[in-house]
Amino acid sequence: MSAPKKVVLAYSGGLDTSIILKWLQTEYGCEVVTFTADLGQGEELEPAREKAVMLGIDPKNIYIEDVREEFVRDFVFPMFRANALYEGLYLLGTSIARPLISKRLVEIAHETGADAVAHGATGKGNDQVRFELAAYALDPDIKVIAPWREWDLTSRTRLLDFAEKNQIPIAKDKRGEAPFSVDANLLHTSSEGKVLEDPAEMAPDYVYQRTVAPEDAPNEPEFIEVGFERGDAVSINGEALSPATILTRLNELGGKHGIGRLDFVENRFVGMKSRGIYETPGGTVLLEAHRGIEQITLDSGAGHLKDSLMPRYAELIYNGFWFSPEREMLQAAIDKSQEHVTGTVKLKLYKGAATCVGRWSDHSLYSEAHVTFEDDAGAYDQKDAAGFIQLNALRLKLLAARKRRLKS
Amino acid sequence: MSAPKKVVLAYSGGLDTSIILKWLQTEYGCEVVTFTADLGQGEELEPAREKAVMLGIDPKNIYIEDVREEFVRDFVFPMFRANALYEGLYLLGTSIARPLISKRLVEIAHETGADAVAHGATGKGNDQVRFELAAYALDPDIKVIAPWREWDLTSRTRLLDFAEKNQIPIAKDKRGEAPFSVDANLLHTSSEGKVLEDPAEMAPDYVYQRTVAPEDAPNEPEFIEVGFERGDAVSINGEALSPATILTRLNELGGKHGIGRLDFVENRFVGMKSRGIYETPGGTVLLEAHRGIEQITLDSGAGHLKDSLMPRYAELIYNGFWFSPEREMLQAAIDKSQEHVTGTVKLKLYKGAATCVGRWSDHSLYSEAHVTFEDDAGAYDQKDAAGFIQLNALRLKLLAARKRRLKS
Amino acid sequence: MSAPKKVVLAYSGGLDTSIILKWLQTEYGCEVVTFTADLGQGEELEPAREKAVMLGIDPKNIYIEDVREEFVRDFVFPMFRANALYEGLYLLGTSIARPLISKRLVEIAHETGADAVAHGATGKGNDQVRFELAAYALDPDIKVIAPWREWDLTSRTRLLDFAEKNQIPIAKDKRGEAPFSVDANLLHTSSEGKVLEDPAEMAPDYVYQRTVAPEDAPNEPEFIEVGFERGDAVSINGEALSPATILTRLNELGGKHGIGRLDFVENRFVGMKSRGIYETPGGTVLLEAHRGIEQITLDSGAGHLKDSLMPRYAELIYNGFWFSPEREMLQAAIDKSQEHVTGTVKLKLYKGAATCVGRWSDHSLYSEAHVTFEDDAGAYDQKDAAGFIQLNALRLKLLAARKRRLKS
Amino acid sequence: MSAPKKVVLAYSGGLDTSIILKWLQTEYGCEVVTFTADLGQGEELEPAREKAVMLGIDPKNIYIEDVREEFVRDFVFPMFRANALYEGLYLLGTSIARPLISKRLVEIAHETGADAVAHGATGKGNDQVRFELAAYALDPDIKVIAPWREWDLTSRTRLLDFAEKNQIPIAKDKRGEAPFSVDANLLHTSSEGKVLEDPAEMAPDYVYQRTVAPEDAPNEPEFIEVGFERGDAVSINGEALSPATILTRLNELGGKHGIGRLDFVENRFVGMKSRGIYETPGGTVLLEAHRGIEQITLDSGAGHLKDSLMPRYAELIYNGFWFSPEREMLQAAIDKSQEHVTGTVKLKLYKGAATCVGRWSDHSLYSEAHVTFEDDAGAYDQKDAAGFIQLNALRLKLLAARKRRLKS
Repeated sequence: MSAPKKVVLAYSGGLDTSIILKWLQTEYGCEVVTFTADLGQGEELEPAREKAVMLGIDPKNIYIEDVREEFVRDFVFPMFRANALYEGLYLLGTSIARPLISKRLVEIAHETGADAVAHGATGKGNDQVRFELAAYALDPDIKVIAPWREWDLTSRTRLLDFAEKNQIPIAKDKRGEAPFSVDANLLHTSSEGKVLEDPAEMAPDYVYQRTVAPEDAPNEPEFIEVGFERGDAVSINGEALSPATILTRLNELGGKHGIGRLDFVENRFVGMKSRGIYETPGGTVLLEAHRGIEQITLDSGAGHLKDSLMPRYAELIYNGFWFSPEREMLQAAIDKSQEHVTGTVKLKLYKGAATCVGRWSDHSLYSEAHVTFEDDAGAYDQKDAAGFIQLNALRLKLLAARKRRLKS
Repeated sequence: MSAPKKVVLAYSGGLDTSIILKWLQTEYGCEVVTFTADLGQGEELEPAREKAVMLGIDPKNIYIEDVREEFVRDFVFPMFRANALYEGLYLLGTSIARPLISKRLVEIAHETGADAVAHGATGKGNDQVRFELAAYALDPDIKVIAPWREWDLTSRTRLLDFAEKNQIPIAKDKRGEAPFSVDANLLHTSSEGKVLEDPAEMAPDYVYQRTVAPEDAPNEPEFIEVGFERGDAVSINGEALSPATILTRLNELGGKHGIGRLDFVENRFVGMKSRGIYETPGGTVLLEAHRGIEQITLDSGAGHLKDSLMPRYAELIYNGFWFSPEREMLQAAIDKSQEHVTGTVKLKLYKGAATCVGRWSDHSLYSEAHVTFEDDAGAYDQKDAAGFIQLNALRLKLLAARKRRLKS
Repeated sequence: MSAPKKVVLAYSGGLDTSIILKWLQTEYGCEVVTFTADLGQGEELEPAREKAVMLGIDPKNIYIEDVREEFVRDFVFPMFRANALYEGLYLLGTSIARPLISKRLVEIAHETGADAVAHGATGKGNDQVRFELAAYALDPDIKVIAPWREWDLTSRTRLLDFAEKNQIPIAKDKRGEAPFSVDANLLHTSSEGKVLEDPAEMAPDYVYQRTVAPEDAPNEPEFIEVGFERGDAVSINGEALSPATILTRLNELGGKHGIGRLDFVENRFVGMKSRGIYETPGGTVLLEAHRGIEQITLDSGAGHLKDSLMPRYAELIYNGFWFSPEREMLQAAIDKSQEHVTGTVKLKLYKGAATCVGRWSDHSLYSEAHVTFEDDAGAYDQKDAAGFIQLNALRLKLLAARKRRLKS
Repeated sequence: MSAPKKVVLAYSGGLDTSIILKWLQTEYGCEVVTFTADLGQGEELEPAREKAVMLGIDPKNIYIEDVREEFVRDFVFPMFRANALYEGLYLLGTSIARPLISKRLVEIAHETGADAVAHGATGKGNDQVRFELAAYALDPDIKVIAPWREWDLTSRTRLLDFAEKNQIPIAKDKRGEAPFSVDANLLHTSSEGKVLEDPAEMAPDYVYQRTVAPEDAPNEPEFIEVGFERGDAVSINGEALSPATILTRLNELGGKHGIGRLDFVENRFVGMKSRGIYETPGGTVLLEAHRGIEQITLDSGAGHLKDSLMPRYAELIYNGFWFSPEREMLQAAIDKSQEHVTGTVKLKLYKGAATCVGRWSDHSLYSEAHVTFEDDAGAYDQKDAAGFIQLNALRLKLLAARKRRLKS
């Protein structure tokens, strides 16, 4: 790879990406463009602008954007149409944000004539893979710089030395090492590393940042109604809301009731296991609600096919293949299934759990006339079941007859 | 089908199967053998013997058996190795009991020289399918009698008339109609029908029989440890226990903490949707525990393959194909994966939720040396990630280059 | 089911459906509308009109249509995009025609105010299922009459008696029984039954109707080029042709070279095995061609996902679920993959085999720069492979380390 | 990676691996052990011994072994039980040999106290991945040396210079460059590179080494019978034969009749497409035979599950994951299905094609009594089909009713 001339950096304004910014300038002598996105991580972004200016970035090279609506509308919601869970439990909160960041990095590179992008993910994790696969899928010639895989600032001491040498301000609370590492966006907060590394040990309470403990949640349940159209949530308690607003409200509701905590050991794409603590309050409520509305609006053919495709779909997102033909193929199938996933779900929120307790829809396939214990006047002829069973049994009988024949 | 001469009836001792018993005697004039199984449904079985005698059954034709250990060891535990959930949520508590009952019905038919078996499931549900497919898979020539599909006792009034005419005692509380219908065994209690038929309406509290409401559960969490060997639970808090005893204890623990309630609309195999209320306290705890131990003992290759096979496996059990080549093939694959699923899980039980908060094992694949943020002295070379990403990206780059080429 | 008043019959003009026509008139006393479709079965259709008139059908109730283009464009080609093979070998020639016939039957019922449709498939086969599932999927209230499951004309003698009694003319060669049964359309000819019932016995030569024996095919190979656009064949040897014309030409070419014969034992949806002789000359050439063009235009992600979905897709079509949400979901995924399946394939036709011997496309993903043994000046860095392998190996090493650890 | 002290080299005796041998001695100064396997590639192995001695290898460090029986019994046959085809067409002849070679390399390393193994695969292909994943799966601490990724002998000239400088004899016909590259074993011969690199160009005749052109094959078909037990071929024309002998005979038969040629563009695991010419005469016959016997001995449940698992299974073998938990899980499922795959298949071999024309077995599930057009006296009640269809149609009717309801 030839040396980059101008690089777009995913810049948070924090110490680590500030060091990367300076390192890019000094190591490669290249012009740096910064991109700071509001994905709902809950931090002020304007300080990132000031800091970038202070580090010598030309104001016209500073991009700060609120991408929350795009994030939820084009990434989170399509994923929730699939009821995607990685390894049975994880709602993919970090995975789904990376492709959006890469997309904007590449677009800004094209706008600014940059030939490279850079990110602050380490060489051990999944995020490097997600950032880079997405970037290459959008621009086959883009260069990607991953300083953590390249530089020799491999200890805390060296990092701080580099920062001091380069006049990068270090907040007091960043002098010592954080007891764990955090990633956050509108969908979730994840925490991992250090004090969380032993999967036998219960995670300490102070790790949780976005949800109260179920023990501290209100003693009374709260009931809400979530409205859906074509697979996407569109309202809460009858109030129509934008995608990002819906997720924000569900986060508040879920967080207040201690919903969406997950203590999890997962398989990283790079081959090792890691332990994470995830808080996905709104997403957990949303999954329960989406499943509830699908229960009455999807038929078994569509539902079972979706269930069988889901693990592969979730794995693709986890591994960083959002921008891939196979994810798009699966999305086409999933979206096709959602045409009638429209209606309302009633949920109970209480002490850590969101539970669907009712669902109704003009698109419902539920037929009381068919299922009722009462006499149903011809909607269903119970005698049909005999033929249904006989033909389903035929091959089993032939197998049993063979077994008997070969024994005798 | 020629008329049966001797039939083995799945007999609960209740009003409905007593009517069936008598109907078989009068309609077919055939000898009846009764089979009453203790599957952990929580009812005394000896009254069934007295009642059968009273209805004219020869005592040597009365089979009453405790099959709880066989049920958990050979049916429930193998299924839990798969983390089986039907349509994402249902733990298959009814489905998994039917093949065992059919197996014993057919075995008793062979022992007693009977040429038929009979069950009390209706023509609208899944249970008729499960009973009959299992019976035919075990004996291709067995006759199966399903009175509910045959007789004209299609209203409550007619049933009670028949009972009175045939001197079948009717308990006072059976005169009126039950507000819903119940099935129970050691794994779960299911309730459906009547007051539960509108899926928009929240299920009334009195439906729940085996779990307290989360609101009424203890205000303090309880922590337990579940030990596993080769995929099966073998101990609770260090005490080695038999399969049925483990499930019984987990039921007590789960029930006390309001764990395992499910309000669910599902797709029946016979083509309609139905709404059920399921209580699976021990099973819900067991699933969480099993997933927890798999997190550190299964590698991603095995885990992801299991996840992708699970929906099909669950569907087979739901649809009644326990005794089928394809279920046995999937079981062989799943069992193969469980050879190292051995270790201990720590769970928190609180207000409706069982949460894995720690897990450890001699068979663990979790490697702190690989995952640590600290310098790891050669266990993992971060530079390898660059090559890993480049080759995973190659096809995406070629796709992107094509898109660019065709545009220009 | 209440008695039908007006019924649309899938009418071939042959003896069997003429008997059905008359039976519907006499048994149900209902008005009959006939639908005769040219699906490319290679028979004159006008005699069917005369015969229908002769049997008393009002001319305005006689529908005769050439649906060959619709058949290939909307049914055959979408299916071939999936490379669909049932049980590894069968090209689904009969299965794919049935939904089109049912669609027209239902549409004509709506146009003519008929309340029922009727078909001539027996109660043992798959076709009854395909006809009826398609009909019910398009009109939930339509009545479907399947005379072969209802009437008592269950022997050849009774059928002929009925025909004579009702003045239905019987061609001389129909007096005796045919040595096997045939179904044909533009995609294939299938033969089964009677002399073909023993799967151990080689099918006699006279069974084959549409292909020469490979032994009798030309001694010189013939080379052709098939052009594709977005997954569908659009030209032969550079000549743009309509869908039905392409399949017709490929049939001629394939038939002349003895291509597309299949001697097959398959699993019917109704539970039994049956043996069929299939001739699919054009389809066999088309499959080979489509696979050839996909080899250079699909990437592995899309290709492998397609391969994994194909068996389910083929099973759905075989079982009669063309008009189902799950087939449509799979079709959406498959169609998405075909956006770049555009280009040309060169095929060799010789003595029973069609072989792809060359393929080229502007949409090709094949990169000689990457694959060449020659020095490739930076397109691919072989050292990347080391990292790729290390990370793919990591979990295998952790597994091996566990095995070693537990042994010691 | 620290420097290896003693390395086991996969040694063919040819020029390339002789250069590697010398390079290992000179570059790493390490002791070299050679392993030369007879996998049925059709070359004398003793010259490899002489050459190794001449290059300074201690005779006790020279391993020459005939592993043909192990190859077919433990690798080829298990794979054929799955009917494995990579990307629809490729019989995996190269892929399946690599894990066996790695297994012996690692075992010999353990026997001789070596700490490393080495292979002659390049950095662009799949074989490096297969060799190395297998090695690491068997010994997590083994070092693997891949000289083609490390050295600077990257042109033909440099290689020959090195050979001359190190007194490695160069056969006259190796002075010039081969027009394509070949790999062979008992299952297949593959050719790729150079003159084959343009996938639009037909492969020249001289590429084919193991099969005659169909045009040159006998003008008369030949019929053979292959016997199977539990999924594996055990006899030809009634003669019981060992696994390797069976494959050898089938190769002779297939090769004589021009069977098993494949011109193929495939997706390599390392991300690029490549074009190969494969000759798999015996394997092609074997696949057709195995499918033939499965047609009558597998039921649809087992068969369809196998079909759906096959693409994943084939991909795992292609990608080098033979020794992985997921391949072993799939193998367990596949092997379970083969318990009754016992019987005999009759095949026609003619001008490039092997065709199953008859099959019979004591384990057959084919039931003439069920399928016959004749009156079948109760084996099958056609009226059962009505109920079967009604219940399969129920959900489709509910879907159609919804569509109608929402329109009105």
